[in-house]
Amino acid sequence: MPAPSDFLQFVDQNADAFIQRLAEAVAIPSISCEVPRRPDVVKMAHWLDGQLKALGVETQLRDLGTHVMDGVELGIPPAVLGRIGNDPKKKTVLLYGHFDVQPASKSDGWNTDPFTLTIHPTNGQLIGRGSSDDKGPVLGWLNVLQYHHQNKKELPVNLRMCFEGMEETGSEGLDDLVVKEGAKGGWFDGVDCVCISDNYWLNTRTPALTYGLRGIAYYKVNVSGPTRDLHSGVFGRMVHEPMTDLIQIMSKLVDTTGQILVPGVDDMVSVASEEEKSLYEQLDYSIADVEESVGAPITLSDDKTTVLMGRMRSPSLSLHGIEGAFYGSGGKTVIPANVTGKFSIRLVPPQTPENVNPLVVSYIESEFAKLKTKNKLSVEAMHGGRPWIADHKHWNFEAAKRATEAVYGRSPDLTREGGSIPVTLTFAETLGVNVLLLPMGRGDDGAHSTNEKLDRSNFIEGTKLLGTYLYELAQ
Amino acid sequence: MPAPSDFLQFVDQNADAFIQRLAEAVAIPSISCEVPRRPDVVKMAHWLDGQLKALGVETQLRDLGTHVMDGVELGIPPAVLGRIGNDPKKKTVLLYGHFDVQPASKSDGWNTDPFTLTIHPTNGQLIGRGSSDDKGPVLGWLNVLQYHHQNKKELPVNLRMCFEGMEETGSEGLDDLVVKEGAKGGWFDGVDCVCISDNYWLNTRTPALTYGLRGIAYYKVNVSGPTRDLHSGVFGRMVHEPMTDLIQIMSKLVDTTGQILVPGVDDMVSVASEEEKSLYEQLDYSIADVEESVGAPITLSDDKTTVLMGRMRSPSLSLHGIEGAFYGSGGKTVIPANVTGKFSIRLVPPQTPENVNPLVVSYIESEFAKLKTKNKLSVEAMHGGRPWIADHKHWNFEAAKRATEAVYGRSPDLTREGGSIPVTLTFAETLGVNVLLLPMGRGDDGAHSTNEKLDRSNFIEGTKLLGTYLYELAQ
Repeated sequence: MPAPSDFLQFVDQNADAFIQRLAEAVAIPSISCEVPRRPDVVKMAHWLDGQLKALGVETQLRDLGTHVMDGVELGIPPAVLGRIGNDPKKKTVLLYGHFDVQPASKSDGWNTDPFTLTIHPTNGQLIGRGSSDDKGPVLGWLNVLQYHHQNKKELPVNLRMCFEGMEETGSEGLDDLVVKEGAKGGWFDGVDCVCISDNYWLNTRTPALTYGLRGIAYYKVNVSGPTRDLHSGVFGRMVHEPMTDLIQIMSKLVDTTGQILVPGVDDMVSVASEEEKSLYEQLDYSIADVEESVGAPITLSDDKTTVLMGRMRSPSLSLHGIEGAFYGSGGKTVIPANVTGKFSIRLVPPQTPENVNPLVVSYIESEFAKLKTKNKLSVEAMHGGRPWIADHKHWNFEAAKRATEAVYGRSPDLTREGGSIPVTLTFAETLGVNVLLLPMGRGDDGAHSTNEKLDRSNFIEGTKLLGTYLYELAQ
Repeated sequence: MPAPSDFLQFVDQNADAFIQRLAEAVAIPSISCEVPRRPDVVKMAHWLDGQLKALGVETQLRDLGTHVMDGVELGIPPAVLGRIGNDPKKKTVLLYGHFDVQPASKSDGWNTDPFTLTIHPTNGQLIGRGSSDDKGPVLGWLNVLQYHHQNKKELPVNLRMCFEGMEETGSEGLDDLVVKEGAKGGWFDGVDCVCISDNYWLNTRTPALTYGLRGIAYYKVNVSGPTRDLHSGVFGRMVHEPMTDLIQIMSKLVDTTGQILVPGVDDMVSVASEEEKSLYEQLDYSIADVEESVGAPITLSDDKTTVLMGRMRSPSLSLHGIEGAFYGSGGKTVIPANVTGKFSIRLVPPQTPENVNPLVVSYIESEFAKLKTKNKLSVEAMHGGRPWIADHKHWNFEAAKRATEAVYGRSPDLTREGGSIPVTLTFAETLGVNVLLLPMGRGDDGAHSTNEKLDRSNFIEGTKLLGTYLYELAQ
């Protein structure tokens, strides 16, 4: 059924208050991968729990135990579970989102404080860490709930909610929770479908529904030699330097065409058929879109389909950086003693961390042996997640298509996404139901980057979309 | 003439007070290559000026103008000039040292706060940034002056002093000062020889005099593409990644045997004759010494002479790190937008920054062109300094040999050093006099590294050595 028109009006009328609530959420620097920020992630869990309770949602904070990060044993931030409605005649929808964020600091190149939501004076963009990934979408659901709570309207579906604080750090502890709560009598028992709003439109114009995600396998390559950093004048050309070795290894992982040099990794993926290629050709997308969103003409190919397939159906290997080397400005003349290269591979079916990890580790070990250095190597596979593909003709997707048409007046692009949300696969496999990715933000939002933003219209129309989707499910 | 015995006693009796003064100096974090620390370098200049004045030295703070660092125009810290004695019957000796230090922070791996001088509870090492490089030696001169001032003893030579605060950042402004003050009527007019205490023994046992230094040429290689950092899930295998390109370039600079891959650079240096090799064979040195000072068996060769020649008469290329990439712990999935590799080449005659820079820049540009990336490259030669060699049979060296024998009871090793003190060459060429490097610290002091230290005995016996050298000059 269509969403009630007063819902749509309510959203427009309350837009400023919704943005104010988003500012509150952004102000909590809930960075899950930094040890000193862990208390902020917990604070964010409590903030969200309080919001949900105030909107009439029955909640529970679920302890997920502890994990070790950077040699420190830390409590995993609790997951926030929510429940409202238990009508057997209604569909039961599970909503997922995350309230942790990527690191951000002004010195990375932000134009504004990343944890102060800043409204761009001319285009109205809402700028701040987590505005789009994923506090904006999570708060979109709060906005929908507020309409129903404040106006004493019954929801068209039963809702179950699962919000976590570790998505950016491998969703530690969540798999076990989903398995446990998906069982008979658990919090997610009886769920008919899942909706996750944690990705982006392909471009800046066309709403999208997403039916595929790449997985990820994240690696650390450590090379160590001396017990302390050395003066390059005193020791240069006397000893094997860990940086020399590490750079050699990192240079052998990927070439400048994007080809992955670890033998067997690219080969695992089938070549696209002409029919599959045509799916990518149909998407509302151009090379100019990529150039606009990255700010420079640096696509690996000038062919739109090739570039789209690079993101949607190919693995990719990115070199993220080096821990332990000199990273400041100026000219420090150090031989770093202990350096750790960080890289990750985005995975597509049939790749999994389990079948890719051994190829990566043994390749690096064999390349390191060829260097004939006396330094020591260790390779560690950090967090990983398998890729995922869903049936985009399922009623869950059909409801989202109708909702998109109702709110935006156009059909959504049907996309596969380059990023990884490992929990998607966990929900699909554990609950055995269809999972829909229903993005709120645009392709140029800059998630994980400096100056992350969510367009005001995406937050407001996106709230309408989320609510309308629930009504369309009830049809 | 030998140093008076009460000088040697004075040094022993005042050792604790000397160490306390060193603690005061270390407590000022005078890091010249960090913009926010610049006021501390200036503070350190004033501290030193005050100390010298209190010891009866006529001083001047010399403004060296401004320079641009990291896009900021900064005042160069003033040089501290000192003068005491003007007896035409005495030799006039110019002392040089520096009061700026390399960066240091606890997070780099220091066991103690780098700016709190810490006395090791068992071995008495004086641990702190600058303890050995170069505040300890500069304060050694203060200790010598204190004996003469406090006891109203005349110095055996006339002294001129030049202490700078930019040695770790290319000695900006100093060349002009030396040229100006070396001219007729200038502060350095009439100087007969120069003594610089700013390097280290070859090992931990044998005092050394140093007659050669490598030069340095420091480079930045910048690769830029997108206008902001990108999410590796969203953009991986769509765009040319600056890190991929930069790592390729950095991997082509040096191999794991230490060979410099920039064509023509290694080739500029002559092959050592058998006679020259024999000089290195005679030095009190073993592979075990290197292994002990670096803490691991990582020498490039198992042959002592080869390893020594690598440091003393060969160029070396060290990769220091990358600015702009992810350097934290954890697993950030970023495609950095703008990354700058830092490396430097230590130079030996006949290499100079002027003849090496064009080879490096054109090689990197041609290797980058081969990558066929759409990202942008820029290569910048930062600070540089030529290598230097002195006549080690000059009376200046002979005086230092006798002083070493008197204080330490043994002949010094005659070494060439791997590090760079560009001002050495400036003094030699501008003043046209012999320059002696008279090290105070040991080969394992960890200058430019974590947990930098100066052994208590090196500070105290080193003070005796500096004073005795002045008396031996007067013979």
